[in-house]
Amino acid sequence: MLVRQKIKYIQTLGQKKFRQEEGVFIAEGPKLVKELLEADAAAVREVFGVTDWVEENASLLAKTTVNTITAAELERISQLTTPNKVLAIVQQYATSEPISVKGQVILVLDNIQDPGNLGTIIRIADWFGVTQIVCSPDSADRYNSKVVQSTMGSIVRVKLNYTDLEEWLGSQKDIAVYAASLDGKDITSIQKIKEGIIIIGNESKGISDAILQLATTRITIPAKGKAESLNAAVAAGIILSHLL
Amino acid sequence: MLVRQKIKYIQTLGQKKFRQEEGVFIAEGPKLVKELLEADAAAVREVFGVTDWVEENASLLAKTTVNTITAAELERISQLTTPNKVLAIVQQYATSEPISVKGQVILVLDNIQDPGNLGTIIRIADWFGVTQIVCSPDSADRYNSKVVQSTMGSIVRVKLNYTDLEEWLGSQKDIAVYAASLDGKDITSIQKIKEGIIIIGNESKGISDAILQLATTRITIPAKGKAESLNAAVAAGIILSHLL
Repeated sequence: MLVRQKIKYIQTLGQKKFRQEEGVFIAEGPKLVKELLEADAAAVREVFGVTDWVEENASLLAKTTVNTITAAELERISQLTTPNKVLAIVQQYATSEPISVKGQVILVLDNIQDPGNLGTIIRIADWFGVTQIVCSPDSADRYNSKVVQSTMGSIVRVKLNYTDLEEWLGSQKDIAVYAASLDGKDITSIQKIKEGIIIIGNESKGISDAILQLATTRITIPAKGKAESLNAAVAAGIILSHLL
Repeated sequence: MLVRQKIKYIQTLGQKKFRQEEGVFIAEGPKLVKELLEADAAAVREVFGVTDWVEENASLLAKTTVNTITAAELERISQLTTPNKVLAIVQQYATSEPISVKGQVILVLDNIQDPGNLGTIIRIADWFGVTQIVCSPDSADRYNSKVVQSTMGSIVRVKLNYTDLEEWLGSQKDIAVYAASLDGKDITSIQKIKEGIIIIGNESKGISDAILQLATTRITIPAKGKAESLNAAVAAGIILSHLL
């Protein structure tokens, strides 16, 4: 049985402040929790699963505190509209080492605000083999429940850093920096790259001027119709599909 | 002042059944409502705007019943988390004529369930100059508030039809039909097209078998990483950017 105090604790983890204090985040649903367990079982501190799920996944749960709960209890702790068999409390990732661009393509996000967009971009990065994303400090929190859920498991494989973009980009020498804007080179005319930085900007304001100044090439998805813009995640997907 | 009966009426339009009975839908926010007024002022039956908005847009409102309301009243009728100056009741579009593929590219959606995805796909179609989408009858309703809002105005320019896909596709002769799947030709190796049909499938199940049989070419976005799939709207954006 789930005690009242535990339910409250899980509910507070909906807030960034408490997640940071505790160094954990919430993940839900069989697919995502299984990916987390398979990637690093020791990082999954505690799971709350319905009987079926716990029995089916017993072999993965040796290193984890397991709570078998009822569907009604899951409903009380879940942040999903449709709770889905299991919720896990997972340890946040260690802040990674200073990031080197050498030999890889890194995605940079300047103030992506919408958690769904951030999660979808993490999933897109994973699809195209990009394993490192650098975000401005004002971007959505990677441990926000909507971000975690919309990565569909890719949060396990893609590293995120939050850092001052001006400073970090300024310290990169001899690296090609591509910035998505409305007045750049047609992406279909640009050669594929194996190394470099690709910057995607805020949903309504695009990339901030100071950051745009640090780009070596501005790139654009050519419009054939009358829409004024594309969704930031869709733009990221199109750009990666042409450049990688 | 907004009478109680009117508030109730607007709230019922959140449901498809009532929207169909009344032949209208709800649109919100200055940008979207302005695009609707500019496209066809007579179709905007009634607007509910705060004083500022009504004064600024007086020249567009000659053909429309205008209600000047308070921010608190807008809050009561709005379906948005953050109500934004104006809400409009708009006439649904006439069901269009039988669709001809001749000389154009048509997007076909097989059971797209998520309203945000459908709205984003309409916006993508508009960006790439695709003006006609054909949806299976079990797809999300184009007049759902989340669909309307996430088109960001593109709902004005892109026509949607809901029809039995098997029947409609079966009746198309000598037309190239591309279907997004996980086992098709690499989209980067396919020549650009000026005419044809592009099918995008359901978020988790993809394109149904019966529909897939009617495709002349299966196409795939090559994966370089480990994500199992891409979001349906992102996939649509990538495919259109390569094929058009």
